[in-house]
Amino acid sequence: MKEVNLVLLGYGRVGRAFLELLHEKRGDCRERYGIDFRLAAVYRREGGVVPGTGFYPESKIGAGWGTAMEYPRLLREIMPGTVIQCIVSDPESGQPGLGMMQAALEAGWHIAAADKGPLVAGPGVLEEAARRKNLKLKISGASAAALPALDVAVRSLAGATILRIEGILNGTTNLILTSMGEGMDYTAALRDAQRRGIAESDPSRDVTGMDTAFKLLLICNAACGTELSFSDIEIQGIDGLPPDLAEQAKKSGKALKLFGRMTRAEGAIRLEVAPAAVGPEHPLFAVRGTEKGVTFTTDTMGDITVIGGRSSPRGAAAALLKDIIDIHKAD
Amino acid sequence: MKEVNLVLLGYGRVGRAFLELLHEKRGDCRERYGIDFRLAAVYRREGGVVPGTGFYPESKIGAGWGTAMEYPRLLREIMPGTVIQCIVSDPESGQPGLGMMQAALEAGWHIAAADKGPLVAGPGVLEEAARRKNLKLKISGASAAALPALDVAVRSLAGATILRIEGILNGTTNLILTSMGEGMDYTAALRDAQRRGIAESDPSRDVTGMDTAFKLLLICNAACGTELSFSDIEIQGIDGLPPDLAEQAKKSGKALKLFGRMTRAEGAIRLEVAPAAVGPEHPLFAVRGTEKGVTFTTDTMGDITVIGGRSSPRGAAAALLKDIIDIHKAD
Repeated sequence: MKEVNLVLLGYGRVGRAFLELLHEKRGDCRERYGIDFRLAAVYRREGGVVPGTGFYPESKIGAGWGTAMEYPRLLREIMPGTVIQCIVSDPESGQPGLGMMQAALEAGWHIAAADKGPLVAGPGVLEEAARRKNLKLKISGASAAALPALDVAVRSLAGATILRIEGILNGTTNLILTSMGEGMDYTAALRDAQRRGIAESDPSRDVTGMDTAFKLLLICNAACGTELSFSDIEIQGIDGLPPDLAEQAKKSGKALKLFGRMTRAEGAIRLEVAPAAVGPEHPLFAVRGTEKGVTFTTDTMGDITVIGGRSSPRGAAAALLKDIIDIHKAD
Repeated sequence: MKEVNLVLLGYGRVGRAFLELLHEKRGDCRERYGIDFRLAAVYRREGGVVPGTGFYPESKIGAGWGTAMEYPRLLREIMPGTVIQCIVSDPESGQPGLGMMQAALEAGWHIAAADKGPLVAGPGVLEEAARRKNLKLKISGASAAALPALDVAVRSLAGATILRIEGILNGTTNLILTSMGEGMDYTAALRDAQRRGIAESDPSRDVTGMDTAFKLLLICNAACGTELSFSDIEIQGIDGLPPDLAEQAKKSGKALKLFGRMTRAEGAIRLEVAPAAVGPEHPLFAVRGTEKGVTFTTDTMGDITVIGGRSSPRGAAAALLKDIIDIHKAD
C-alpha cells in the first residue's frame, strides 16, 4: 500500500465535492489501485485546517480555519504528494493560484488543477516548471472535467496529428441554446438556467464565450504542443445573438451550438469561439442541455468524438480524483 | 533520444499497415516523444527477416523470410523493447500468438497486441505474466483499435465504478445493418460489404456476433478487473434475423444495431451480444456504416460516449503505434 499525501486548496463547491468523493472512494482506491490517500490539510484564503485522521465529514473541516501551519512550510515538512488546486484565480494575473502552484512544484509536489486561471495566464510556465522537476501537472479538472477531452487528445491520439478540434465545451451556454431552440427567448433561457443552479448570477464568463475559449486553449496547448494565449482566440459569445436564430435553426432541422474550434490553415493554428447551426449529420448535433462534447479530426485515426461526462461539482471532483490516481498508480 | 527496439509478428494487412505508418511517423516520434524506434526484425510463420537500417519500404521486407535468427534467440540477444503481435491466433488455444507473447514477456519485452486470440483464450494469463515482470501489455489494437474504448475505460474513468457498458464494436455488422435499414436484404447487404473489402469472404466471425463478444470481453476484463471467459457471454448475431426488422425499425424512426453489453445485477456482471432497435435519444443512434462507438455509464461521471476511430488496417496500426508510444514515452 502506497501512502500519498494530499493538500487541498479551495473549499468552494468543487473543493467540497472533492472531499466528499474522496471520503466515499477512499477504500476503493486502496483496493483497486493500492493507494492510501491521506488528506494532510485544506487551505482557503483565510488559512488552513488539518483534518483529523478521518476524512470529511468526520474531520473538523468547516471550523478552525487558520489553525494549520503556513502552506509553504507544510509543503516542505511532509512527504510530497499531490496538491489539488480549486481556488478560483484571476485569468490575467493567474493569482492567487499561480503562486501557490509554483510553491507546490518548488517543494516537489505534483498538481491536479480544477482552476483555469493560472494555466491561462501564463501558458507553458507551470508546464515547464513541472517538467524541470520531473513532476506531473494534470489539468483535466480545468479543461473539460469529466469529459475526457485531454486524455483522448494526449494519450489516445498519440502518434496521430490532430488536424481539427471542434467542441461544445460549456454546459451553461449549451443549455441556454437548447432552451432557445425550444422557443424561449435568451433572457428567459438564462433565468431558467440560473434558477436551476447551472448559470451563475454573473453569467458573463459563460455567455460571452470566455469559458469556452479558456478550455479550448488548454486542450489545444496540451494536445498540439502549442503555447498559444487567450489573446490569440477570436471570440463570439451567445449574448447579443439575433433573438430567433436558435428557433429558426430548429425549424430547419438544425441545432445552434457554441463551438470552440481549432483549425489549421497553411501550417498555422487558428482558434475561435463562435455559434453555428449544425444538422443531424454533425457528430455533436445530439449534444443537448448541459452536456458537452468534442470531436478530434486526425490524419491516421479518422474522427474521434467524446460526449458526456457529468457537468457538476461532482463531475469536476471525479476528474480531479482520476488525475490523482493517474499520477500515483503503479504503471 | 531513447532508442527502442521493435519486433513485429505478422505480415498481413495490419502488420504491413503498421510498417507503413511507422515509416511515415518515425521522424515525428523522434521530435514529439524523443523516441527513436528501431525495427529489429519481422516474423511470420515462415520465419523472420531483418530489415536494413531504414524502414519499409526501403528495407528488404517481402524477400528473405527465414534469414533472421530464430525468434526466441533474437529476443534474448538485443535490448528488449516492444513486440508487436499481429499474427492471427486461434481463440480457443490462443496459438501461435500465446506462445510467442509468453516468450516475449519471459525475455523482458513489452507487448502491443492487435491479435485477440491469446487474450480471449486465457483471460488473465498474459496480464498476470506481464505484471509479475513489471512489463506492459497493451491491447488497444485488439479491442476496438482506433476507437479509444480501453483508454477511456481504464484511465479516464479511474476512480469511478462502471455500472454499464454498451457498444457497437464491429464495423462490418453495423454496415450491414445500416444497409438493411435502407431496404437491402441481408444477403445483398453482406455481399455489398464484401465487395467493398469490409466483410471477409468468410464473414461468420462478424455476423454471428463473435467478434463483438471478443471485444466486449477484452474491454470488460480490462475496465472492471474481471477474468470472464468467452463462454460467459450470451451471444446472438445478425445472421438469421427476421428479414425486415432493420427496415421496420427505420420506418418507426429507430435504428437496428448489434450491441455488446455489460450490465450489473445484484453485484454480478452479465455480458451479452444481441441486436436491438434504438431511437434518436440513444447516444449511439447516429453511429452508422463501419463506425463504432461505446457508452460507459458510471457512478460519478455520468455517461461517457466515445464514437469513431478509423475501421481499417491503418486505424489498427495507429492504435498499435499509440500503445507503443504510451509504453515508452517519458511520463
